[in-house]
Order: sequence, then C-alpha cells, then structure tokens
Amino acid sequence: MTDRYVIGVDYGTLSGRALVVRVADGAELGSAVHPYRHAVVTDAVPGGGRRLPPDWALQVPSDYLDVLRLAVPQALAAAGVDPADVIGIGTDFTACTMVPTTADGTPLCELPRFAGRPHAYVKLWRHHAAQGQADRINALAAERAEKWLPRYGGFISSEWEFAKGLQVLEEDPEIYAAMDRWVEAADWIVWRLCGRYVRNACSAGYKGILQDGEYPSRDFLAALNPGFADFVEAKLAQPIGELGAPAGRLSAEAAAWTGLPAGIAVAVGNVDAHVTSAAANALEPGQMVAIMGTSTCHVMNGADLHEVPGMCGVVLGGISAGAYGYEAGQSGVGDIFGHFVHTAVPPAYTEAAAAAGVSVHRYLTDLASAQAVGEHGLLALDWHSGNRSVLVDHELSGVLVGQTLATRPEDVYRALLEATAFGARTIVETFGAAGVPVREFVVAGGLLKNHLLMQIYADVLRMPLSVIGSDQGAALGSAIHAAVAAGAYPDVPTAAAAMGRLRRNAYRPIPGNSAVYDELFAEYTRLHDHFGRGGNDLMRRLRALQRAALTRKASL
Amino acid sequence: MTDRYVIGVDYGTLSGRALVVRVADGAELGSAVHPYRHAVVTDAVPGGGRRLPPDWALQVPSDYLDVLRLAVPQALAAAGVDPADVIGIGTDFTACTMVPTTADGTPLCELPRFAGRPHAYVKLWRHHAAQGQADRINALAAERAEKWLPRYGGFISSEWEFAKGLQVLEEDPEIYAAMDRWVEAADWIVWRLCGRYVRNACSAGYKGILQDGEYPSRDFLAALNPGFADFVEAKLAQPIGELGAPAGRLSAEAAAWTGLPAGIAVAVGNVDAHVTSAAANALEPGQMVAIMGTSTCHVMNGADLHEVPGMCGVVLGGISAGAYGYEAGQSGVGDIFGHFVHTAVPPAYTEAAAAAGVSVHRYLTDLASAQAVGEHGLLALDWHSGNRSVLVDHELSGVLVGQTLATRPEDVYRALLEATAFGARTIVETFGAAGVPVREFVVAGGLLKNHLLMQIYADVLRMPLSVIGSDQGAALGSAIHAAVAAGAYPDVPTAAAAMGRLRRNAYRPIPGNSAVYDELFAEYTRLHDHFGRGGNDLMRRLRALQRAALTRKASL
Repeated sequence: MTDRYVIGVDYGTLSGRALVVRVADGAELGSAVHPYRHAVVTDAVPGGGRRLPPDWALQVPSDYLDVLRLAVPQALAAAGVDPADVIGIGTDFTACTMVPTTADGTPLCELPRFAGRPHAYVKLWRHHAAQGQADRINALAAERAEKWLPRYGGFISSEWEFAKGLQVLEEDPEIYAAMDRWVEAADWIVWRLCGRYVRNACSAGYKGILQDGEYPSRDFLAALNPGFADFVEAKLAQPIGELGAPAGRLSAEAAAWTGLPAGIAVAVGNVDAHVTSAAANALEPGQMVAIMGTSTCHVMNGADLHEVPGMCGVVLGGISAGAYGYEAGQSGVGDIFGHFVHTAVPPAYTEAAAAAGVSVHRYLTDLASAQAVGEHGLLALDWHSGNRSVLVDHELSGVLVGQTLATRPEDVYRALLEATAFGARTIVETFGAAGVPVREFVVAGGLLKNHLLMQIYADVLRMPLSVIGSDQGAALGSAIHAAVAAGAYPDVPTAAAAMGRLRRNAYRPIPGNSAVYDELFAEYTRLHDHFGRGGNDLMRRLRALQRAALTRKASL
Repeated sequence: MTDRYVIGVDYGTLSGRALVVRVADGAELGSAVHPYRHAVVTDAVPGGGRRLPPDWALQVPSDYLDVLRLAVPQALAAAGVDPADVIGIGTDFTACTMVPTTADGTPLCELPRFAGRPHAYVKLWRHHAAQGQADRINALAAERAEKWLPRYGGFISSEWEFAKGLQVLEEDPEIYAAMDRWVEAADWIVWRLCGRYVRNACSAGYKGILQDGEYPSRDFLAALNPGFADFVEAKLAQPIGELGAPAGRLSAEAAAWTGLPAGIAVAVGNVDAHVTSAAANALEPGQMVAIMGTSTCHVMNGADLHEVPGMCGVVLGGISAGAYGYEAGQSGVGDIFGHFVHTAVPPAYTEAAAAAGVSVHRYLTDLASAQAVGEHGLLALDWHSGNRSVLVDHELSGVLVGQTLATRPEDVYRALLEATAFGARTIVETFGAAGVPVREFVVAGGLLKNHLLMQIYADVLRMPLSVIGSDQGAALGSAIHAAVAAGAYPDVPTAAAAMGRLRRNAYRPIPGNSAVYDELFAEYTRLHDHFGRGGNDLMRRLRALQRAALTRKASL
C-alpha cells in the first residue's frame, strides 16, 4: 500500500479541492483548488435577465465538472504521483444542494429550453426561499405527529430536499414535471463519475427524511399539495449506498476528465461535515467533531437511538455504517467574528494591526488573550444568524449586555468568542441530557488556528479539546472513503485509524477559568432561555417591525 | 436699558465662559472662554507626588479666579462695551463641587501646610470616591424613614455635600477639623466677588439636603459617625439667598480683577443646568428643560410638591423663587454616541466622512436619517454610565439586542440615539404618573445641533420640541439673574421673558413615526424593567465578576 494512492475531492460553497493521499498512512501529497466560475448565483441566472428574488442561491452544475477536469490533474501533478497508482476516488459535497435532472442525470438548466428558468438550476444549501414550504411541512408534521419529526429535533429545514422540491412544484410546475430526478449534488457528482445513480445514506437521512427505511408518506405529501403526493417515488427514491461502499467504477469519460485510470473505485457520495469525522479518526460514540468555520457543524456517532431536542438530525449510518450519526449546528460562528472585524473595529486598531503585520483578528485576539476571565464585564448571545441548535429559530438575533464607556473592541471580540463557546456547551449539555453523552470535543476547520478560541472552548466545555491533524479535513475524509471503496481497508473506522489524524488533548481546561465560565454560562443560559424560549419574544417582534418598515418604505 | 449690560459667567468642568449681554433684550454681544490651568486633577495634587486613588476628581480654586481676571475683560473687549455701562454680574457653576475653606473663605489647599493634602482641594462634581459614605447615608435614611429621602427620589448621591463631607472627616480628620466652612463652588465664587458668603437656594436644596428649612438632624448625623454630629452647624449652615437676589456688591478687589465698576450688583450663585431655564424662558410649570450634552440634566418648575420616584430632587425655589423645582437626569447621552464613534466605527466610514469633509457623527447621522423607524431591527438600553433617573443604579450597563450579520454602524448609532430618547420618555412618563405633568420638552446644550436626534425625541415623546435660542445658555441665564439682581427687572420670569430665547415647536412629532416608536418604547420598557427592576440582575453580577477578575489579576 506504500505506493498506492487515493483522491479525495471536497466540493465547498465557492470552490472544489482535490487532494492526493497515500493509502498506507494518509499522507497528503498534493492538492489543488478550483473556484467555481459562477460561484453562487444570487442576482440572475447566467445569460438571463430575470432578477432572482431575495434568499435565492443557485449554482451551475458544469462548474462541478471543471473541478474534476482541472483540480484533479493539478493535484496529481503537485503530488508527483503516477495516476496509474491511484486506486480510488471519493467525494464530499455541501448539503442540502439539489440538482433537478432528466432520467439520465442531465441537469435541466443544460436543456436549452430551460436555460433561462431559475428553478432549472442547482439550489445551493443556502437557498432560503423555501421557508414558506418548510413552515407548512413542520406545521402539518407536528399536527399529524409524524414519527420522523423528532428525528430532526422537531423541525425540518427550508434548506432540505422536501421544502426545496415543493417550492419547485408550486412556483414552476413545468420544471417540476420535466424533472425526472431530484438529486443531491453529492450523488450527482458520483453519478457523473461512474455512470450509476446511488443515493448516499448520509444525505438521504439528514436531508431526505429517510428514517427506518421510509420516507414521509404519500398521505402526508398529498395533504401538503395534491401534486406532491408521488414526490418520493417519482423524483426521489433510489437505492441507498452505505458510506465507504463503492458506487461503481470510474467511467471512460470521467477518466478522460481527470487523467485517472478508468475502472478504479468511485466511493458513494458524502457530506463535507460528516466525512470529516473519518479524517479526524473520531468515529467512536461520544467523540463530537465540530467543523468550525463561518458556522459550526457538529457530528457524532452514538451507539443507540435517542431523540435530542433541537438537533439537526439522527441517521443510522449517517456518519459511518452501523452507528447512529447525530448532527447539530451553530449557524453563526466565524462569520460573527468576521462581521465584527469588518464593521466595528476603529482605524486605530486596524492601523496598529497593519503596523504589526498581523490580521485584525490576530491583533484583537492578542489583546483579548491578556484578559482574565470575566474582566471585560460583557455577555453576548451568538445568534446573529439565528439559532440552529437547540432552539431552531432563525428569527433570533444577537445580544450584547454590559457595555460601559470603558468597553474596548477587544472586550467585545472576546465576548463574541465566548458566546459561541457557550452555544457549543448548550449543545453538548442538551445531548448529554438526552442520553447521548459527549466525551471528547474534536475541532476541525479553519478556526482551530485561533489558540485563544480553542482554550476558551476547553475552559467553557470543561473538556479536553482534540484537534484534527489536517487542514484539508473534508478532502482527506473523502480520500479515506475512497480507500475503503477500493478495498484497501475493510471498513471506514479501520481506514480512519490508519489514515486519519487527531491531536488528542491539544487544549486542557484551566480549572480557575472554568470556574468563572461556569458562572458566565449560567448567565448565558438565563439570557438564552429568556430570549429564546418565550420569556421575551423581542427579537421576533424586532424582525417584524423591520419587515414592516421596509415594506412601508418600498411602497413610498 | 438699551445701553445697560450685564455679565454672565458660566463655570463648566474644564473652562469658564464670560458673556456680555444687553439688559434690554438679552442680545449676546461678546464672549470669551478660559480653560482652567489644572483642568481636572485625577492623578496627583499639583506639586505633590502622592497618587490619587481611583474615582477622585479635584480642582484648584485659583483657576476659577483666572476666569474673572482673563475671560471677563476679554468678553468686554469683544463686545465693545464700556465697563461703566455694566450694571451687574451673575455666575453659575457645576454642582455639587465643594471647596473646604477657612472662616474667611480661603481654600485650605492655599495654606502652605496643606498644599500636599488631597482633601484640602476642591472636590469636583464627578469625584466619585465617596460612594461608601453615600451608601451608608442611604441605608440609614431608609431605615429611619427620614422624611427628606423621598424628596431625592429615594437616593442621595455620592456626589453631594454630605457624602463628600463625611469622606473628608473619615479619611483626613485634620483637614476636616481645619475646615471652617464646606462651601459650594457656586457660592465660593460669589463670596470672592462681593466679600459675602450667601448660600444659594438651588445647591442648598438639591445638593445640601435642605428641605422645608431643615437639614438632616444631629441625631441622624451622629448615627453615621459621632464626629459628624455637628456637621451642619459647624461647616454648612449659612443664610440662604434666593435665585436672582443680589448677594452683595462687587468688591474693589474683584473690580480690579475684572475691570468692572466696583459696587455693581453680584447675583446669588446658581447651578449651570438650572440657570439655563431662564435663558430658554422656560420657567412655567410643565416646561421641562433638557440640557443635552455628554449627559442630560432635566429641570422643570412645578406648582405643587410631589415625590417622583427616582428623580434627582425637588426643591422649593430651586429653579426660580416660589416654584417647586424638579430635577432628573440621564447619566450617559452624548458620551454614549462619542464612545461609539471612537471605538466602533470602521476605517471605511471614517475615511468616507473625512472625504466628505464632515464629522463621523454627521456622517453616521446622515446615513441613519435615510432609515424608516424600525428598519434597523435593533433595540438598545442607554445605560453605559448607569441609570440616574428613574432607576438610580450606577451598576447598570448598556444592552444591544437584534444584531445580525447585516447590521451596519449607522444602524447601531441610530439605535443608540433612540435609546436615549426612550430614556427621556421614561422620565417624562414617570413625572406625569407622579402628578407632575410635562407639557413641553425644551432642549438646550450641544446636542440640539443634531436634527435627526431632535426629530427622534419629538417622535418618541409625542410632544412638540422647543429649542433654546442660544448656544451659551448657562452664561445667558447667569446674565439674566444679574439683571434681576441689579434691579432692572422685578423677578427672574419677567427678565427671562425679555432676555431669554426659545424657538417653540421647532420639531413636531410625525404621527407615523410616533406610532412605531410607541411599539419600540413598549419593548424598551420591558427590557428596562427586566434588567433594571430585578427581573435579571445580570449587569450587577457582570460588574462583580469584572471586579473579581481584576482583583485576581492584581494579586498575581
């Protein structure tokens, strides 16, 4: 195995990354990134003049193929690896990102007659224009006490397959009728690679409401909209592939795109967050992997099935075959810090950072590092993008308490870092209370570079913090799945043990800090419950006043 | 009267201003400002190496005389007025600012043996190191149900005569023993001008706890500290002069300082906020004058005596003879806006303001002016410096609710402007509920230049807003008192009608705005009561954690 290699391809929001990995030990030998030509389409479909409404976010599927054509050969060249020594390819994707296709997988937007039609394009995960449909799905499911609803913490997201599919039906019935298949991009790219459409267990479960082998019933769908009754069988149902299994063999066409040998293993598709658990070799029950970037996604295996309030979902085999995969999330983390740096840091600070040759983030972090816990006198809620877990309420918003005339930018910055740590502890405690204990907190993603943030998380969580040993976690995870699909390892955990990388206990709680954070976390919880659980629905009313103001203004 | 003039001298925190005014119509003919050489002493007494503890704020009395020597002649020269045509001089001062003196009025700090002793200097209004004494005064007064306590909304301030005097006794008994008189600076300067020590009714009432002709009892004072039992008779009591009455005639010495004729009338002293009511010709019951600067002071005459919860005080003759003068305050207004501009506005904004040739305040105001009410989706509490009225709690702090990743600097800026308007409405409504209705809101002070702020106040208060017609309101008010003291008018209201200037109804509420502000004010009140009236004492606990953190850090 020392001269065998696999390719992992990670499809992110703005670009795709290819990584060449040695099968024997997971060594990362070369990588390349290709930014999507159309990036995220929010204004108008390519070539078309029609303006998209707010909250729309589309993509163009040919951009995904360009990653195979360009990034894979570049990564091979960078690695200095002979393509003939590559034995498999694995992929992961953002989710839920949906492609409407014909029966052979051709995206509808590639049919000339539909090129100007917004609903013919890929709906990116952050397309949020199906909220009305999601609200109806949730209301009806709650009313009918659908047994799948608690598997999603009580709420189906507007980002997922059913809400987005119903939006297509109701807003462009002709596209809906022409759409033979409603395909996760994670599966569409695998279909392109091997010529077979296999639906991966992860997105089918988390995004497709497949629970205990069943989708929502025909009855339920008909009650939403009579035309939606056969949505499952007509558009969605497809054989399920387990994670790490081969979906097929690399086609001649895909071999030509990538420069890889035809016939090598193509792994079943996967989701970027979930595949990272393998890269971190953190697949044991109780190892919660937090992929911390602009937002945070938490994934963790559990031995048994429990219904955790406000989780994003629990799916058997959703992270690795045979285990119950749990998912939770914080909708704003790094982007809250970024928003603060871009909108609330004065020139004296940005100039001092530039003079010191460091980023403003780093400059603020260094200043904040000198503080004792509690010194800034502030407490924040991390809800600038709403709350995904455990409240599941996108109408929530941020709070900052404690400002005085002595409050400085580094004080607020530190309070925001801490707020996200308190948010993480809320999730960890909710899982524990529901019978799914978290024993180790494993961090992956770009934010692990901030040592102060990591120490704060360890102190707040009162738990040693482990960090992934790769900064290309998702691509490495996909490569691990490729190795399993190619038969180099018997299963994903075995492959992860050999190829994944985890730096255990990289940060340990400092008892004095944790003691003060316990007090601050109690305050956070009080504020969290006051504004988030009905004590004062101020945030919801502020949003309503804001919408009313904008409507009034537009009508002038 | 067309060729008769008066001088008003306004003693502020950092400088003194002299203004030459025509008696007939209040025309402002010339002015000059002299900054105090020692400004505010917070580090060490002049020439002495002893470090002052935190919260100390001292001044040097000779700086006040320099204003007479320099600013008065300069103002006369600027006005082109013959000093022989000046018939009187009036003064106003910050309060409560206290001078410890010998029996002839010599400040103790001018005695060589006391020059290095901090307690021998003037304690400026914002000397806050007597909080421990104030707390004891309040606790004991509440326990004994002293009948004067409700006249001050239930709380005596650490800034006032008794708390500061008790601090001198307890921290430097030798200075206390040497101190024959404990004199308001407002009266000390008049004493210097005319050689007679007359205690003005305004500071005696608001700052000296003189109610119904009596000070706190010997019993009460003895219970605080046996050595304090004779504080009133030994240090404080003095004949009271009504506002606008002559305290005496200009002495030869003071005539030499100022270049004014000896023997002209010297008016009884006054306080800067209260004297402004005359300048705005707003002495009728129900006309609330708000002097809006870094903080806001509200003063208003009422026909009857009522006890308003959380007011700063009610004093018979405290604003003008024969009426009950009410006072309230907001401890942070302009300084909250200033803190935001200095610490939370990014380079893109400061550069755009500079390019447009406007201040950052103006730039943010212009952007915020384009918004509809409610559009920013934010709500703030204006407690960065605590809350003076109506909660009287300096442990409170600021709050901002509603931030999203779309929140911009102008959004927060506008929310802060609005928060202070909601704070003002809280005061207005509390007065109304206590039987002291506010019928007109009159603005004086530097902030009246911000038209958006004024419109927001009119909209929030649902009341026409009048503005003073002078930007030297306090000095003009002192000049009006000088004219009355000189006999040119029979009383202050008559003089104010002739010499004061009010632009009535300069801003009128816009009904559509007021309707939305009613909703936002209801939200403000809910938040105000939650954090301010015991729903969640988070702010107090955050301050305690902050103090503990700083103590831990200092002990390392």
